[in-house]
Amino acid sequence: MKFTTGKRPPAVAFVARSGTGKTTLVEALIAALTARGLRVGAMKHDAHRFAIDRPGKDSARFTAAGAEVMVLVSEDTVATIRRPRDPVPLDDLLDASFADLDLVLVEGYKTSALPKIEVHRAALSQPLLCRGQRTDDPHLVAVVSDTPLEIDVPVLDLAQPETVADFLIRTFLPPR
Amino acid sequence: MKFTTGKRPPAVAFVARSGTGKTTLVEALIAALTARGLRVGAMKHDAHRFAIDRPGKDSARFTAAGAEVMVLVSEDTVATIRRPRDPVPLDDLLDASFADLDLVLVEGYKTSALPKIEVHRAALSQPLLCRGQRTDDPHLVAVVSDTPLEIDVPVLDLAQPETVADFLIRTFLPPR
Repeated sequence: MKFTTGKRPPAVAFVARSGTGKTTLVEALIAALTARGLRVGAMKHDAHRFAIDRPGKDSARFTAAGAEVMVLVSEDTVATIRRPRDPVPLDDLLDASFADLDLVLVEGYKTSALPKIEVHRAALSQPLLCRGQRTDDPHLVAVVSDTPLEIDVPVLDLAQPETVADFLIRTFLPPR
Repeated sequence: MKFTTGKRPPAVAFVARSGTGKTTLVEALIAALTARGLRVGAMKHDAHRFAIDRPGKDSARFTAAGAEVMVLVSEDTVATIRRPRDPVPLDDLLDASFADLDLVLVEGYKTSALPKIEVHRAALSQPLLCRGQRTDDPHLVAVVSDTPLEIDVPVLDLAQPETVADFLIRTFLPPR
């Protein structure tokens, strides 16, 4: 098995203002899609320092010493820490990371050209990120919301992740 | 930049009984090789659960939900957590992880067919792993020791990582 020889799967970005429960939705979607036999990848931007790379751990010692790539292998997990010399374009990350999977759920990357699903919660009383007076993101394909919205893309129910999973399969995967 | 298009660099495994200071040596070698302008990767087997994958963290939530691959991106680091369905052969890991680097230092994998350097410390009073009455590992290329040894491969000084770095460059890298 090689990680890197297969075709790159479709990727969809979930964007939201904070507090909408985006991570919980993505988690539920991963479970729903996996339960249907699909192979799912996930990606997120994380401004925090990774726990695996904290001072004192061997991986941190090796990267601090200058290792550009550090691979940790355990019985069921392979963790790879890269400190690339230059920022890696999103497209290259997707190409290199998810070969052979069926679908990738991305958290964030709201300025990317990935197809996007915005998560909305009425209680936050905030306008959408992808639709508004000054924004009209052409990559928006749906909104997942806990309240009805009048908008030019499908609105899916935040309380029904299975329905969102159906939408993802219908929209991004080839018919099986 | 793609991770995966370049040639796979040579890899050498550092093996030792515990307590020899193997990790400290590998750390010093990474620093010495990097200081000479080389691009170095590192790999180790780790039986412990990775900190990055502890319950409660988003990455752990996503892998627990079924994500086979989880990529976390921060400003200067890309961390990838894979839970492959089947164990990944060492060769495939090396192929997929270290393209474009000059040399990979591997900790452990003492039963592999990688070229091997054994780290030895006299105070432990233990026989070598790779030479003995019942073992004669054909992949052993050198021993790094704090005491002279009579043996059929070069013996390098544990107190002089620069000398070990010289040996690695001479043995594994093309002349520059």
